[in-house]
Amino acid sequence: MADGFTFEILAEDGAARTGRIRTPHGAVETPAFMPVATYGAVRGLGPEDLMEVGAQILLSNTYHLHERPGEELVSRMGGLHGFTGWRGPWLTDSGGYQVFSLGDRMKLDEEGVTFQSPLDGARRQLTPESALAIQEALGPDIAMVLDECPAVDADEPAARASMERTLRWAERAAAARTRDDQWVFGIVQGGAHAGLRLESARATAALGFDGHAHGGLGLGEEPARRADLVAEVNAVLPKAQPRYLMGLGRPEDIVAAVARGVDLFDCVLPTRHGRHGVLFTHEGLLQAKNAQYKDDPSPPDPQCDCPVCARHSRAYLRHLFQTGERLGGRLASIHNLRFYLRLLEQARLAIREGRFDTWARGTGLELP
Amino acid sequence: MADGFTFEILAEDGAARTGRIRTPHGAVETPAFMPVATYGAVRGLGPEDLMEVGAQILLSNTYHLHERPGEELVSRMGGLHGFTGWRGPWLTDSGGYQVFSLGDRMKLDEEGVTFQSPLDGARRQLTPESALAIQEALGPDIAMVLDECPAVDADEPAARASMERTLRWAERAAAARTRDDQWVFGIVQGGAHAGLRLESARATAALGFDGHAHGGLGLGEEPARRADLVAEVNAVLPKAQPRYLMGLGRPEDIVAAVARGVDLFDCVLPTRHGRHGVLFTHEGLLQAKNAQYKDDPSPPDPQCDCPVCARHSRAYLRHLFQTGERLGGRLASIHNLRFYLRLLEQARLAIREGRFDTWARGTGLELP
Repeated sequence: MADGFTFEILAEDGAARTGRIRTPHGAVETPAFMPVATYGAVRGLGPEDLMEVGAQILLSNTYHLHERPGEELVSRMGGLHGFTGWRGPWLTDSGGYQVFSLGDRMKLDEEGVTFQSPLDGARRQLTPESALAIQEALGPDIAMVLDECPAVDADEPAARASMERTLRWAERAAAARTRDDQWVFGIVQGGAHAGLRLESARATAALGFDGHAHGGLGLGEEPARRADLVAEVNAVLPKAQPRYLMGLGRPEDIVAAVARGVDLFDCVLPTRHGRHGVLFTHEGLLQAKNAQYKDDPSPPDPQCDCPVCARHSRAYLRHLFQTGERLGGRLASIHNLRFYLRLLEQARLAIREGRFDTWARGTGLELP
Repeated sequence: MADGFTFEILAEDGAARTGRIRTPHGAVETPAFMPVATYGAVRGLGPEDLMEVGAQILLSNTYHLHERPGEELVSRMGGLHGFTGWRGPWLTDSGGYQVFSLGDRMKLDEEGVTFQSPLDGARRQLTPESALAIQEALGPDIAMVLDECPAVDADEPAARASMERTLRWAERAAAARTRDDQWVFGIVQGGAHAGLRLESARATAALGFDGHAHGGLGLGEEPARRADLVAEVNAVLPKAQPRYLMGLGRPEDIVAAVARGVDLFDCVLPTRHGRHGVLFTHEGLLQAKNAQYKDDPSPPDPQCDCPVCARHSRAYLRHLFQTGERLGGRLASIHNLRFYLRLLEQARLAIREGRFDTWARGTGLELP
């Protein structure tokens, strides 16, 4: 256990649990949603905006920050906390997922992953050791190991090979740690094969990480199948450590995973949808550009407590998207983040009060 | 004088003066800078942001709002104040300048200006009466008459013809007013010909408007020449009414015009420069993208009191512009607006304390 960190489970309700992660940069009430700040900034939103909607911890990306501006510079500027002005907790993804998505420009072997930078064409390598070293320089409160993510339809032998390599890489990452003021999470792989994922979870848990993530999900499998895989793996992960479902997802995916004992989430959906004028509401998705809202004086979501719904109408939002005013994307992103963050506030309260299932059914979300 | 409005001069220092415009939506301490919200939104900034940097009054555009979303809709949504969420005072430009810039798609005659909409190709007309009627529907605190703006190099006969038409249009606008809770300003024209501008000012002042604007400047004439024209015209405009220099300009242009008795300003420069990573500072313009700032931990402007300089470094701003994160344009725009608004706060204080010239020289700006 790293210095200055604790994870405390405050209440349980079935498999769902609510707790508190303490970090040197502040506490995170779980289950928690982490807004995505790929390059150290959440699209168009500053630290004040994120505090106002109730964000507790942000997620950034090792690969992207390694490319620009480079971890050495971020480190000299005071790490992610000092460089970006978000002084609360940070988590960094290892960057493997982004590198794998480079396709032809990426080559994978036992040592790590070699790729041609889309920025300057230079050849770069990410290894379990270098991915961790970069994150030690960036200074997030929580770092992730480099993992290999198989295709969702990988057959058993392919998924096994990639899971076993991820394990060997995790061992190397664990051995390479030099900071005792940073948490490192292992990542469970194994594609859609429950047996492989359980094997991965048991072996990863034996490596002494501070928490664990479900990797390689949300890539096309059925939501119900995914919920089962998450539940089975959580049953063998150390109960006393945080569990993180990477890169997911829709509000219904998140509530379903909270029900199965997941503590941390991240997803680009609230800000990506926001940029495109799609708003999460208690009645479902609202397409702000639709003509039906052109003279609608009601707030985007009458049940919402966000600063956008307090001040602005659907008619004004539609106008902003119609005229291409960038204030539209900003307001919709603020609203959407508040939707996600409030959903998890409500989940935490429902768990504490022992009424999680009732609450989850009452959200109106189509739960897998 | 419209109901609910007053203009009070609180102190004078040479030709410079500081005062207070009271409107039904709040007071404006003058001299004042009006951030530009062409479509009812200042690029990426919401009402809270504008209040935080000290904005008092916003400017919007009759032509653009007439095209989208239309004044009828804005009126039903509570006018500009209700529609946009900026509850403080508004001024709308008449839109003539924007229509004239349509070039070939625009035809001018005594009745008004006919143009083909760049949006849907439809033929539309703006007349002195309709420009005012649109503004009465939009509901700003201050409306502007429709004027004809000659080219800056127009010869005397051309500038006279256009100035005289502007006068006839102003008479028609004055006769068309139906709201007694809205100010209307006349516009002085006459190109770069001092005699014509004086004639225009005297005749416009005789029409009983609530204030007057210098139109058709900032289109290429020398700053010193412009300052002279402003001073000469101010000498014949009614002293007890506000004077507005339209669409200008750089900080030095504004300070020079304050020295000559101007009370209101607007310009897109702070937000346009902000979007492109150009920051106003006490040391001059700062190009945020420059490599020299890549590891500069100091705030954009160490003498600045804005929320961006309180929290963020040049290194972070450069990173945001390098990676195309839209937060960069937002932060730079907030900073730049605060630069302009603080400049006018300082000017007001200096005038009250009878040390305007000393202050103006101490700004380091190259004053014409």
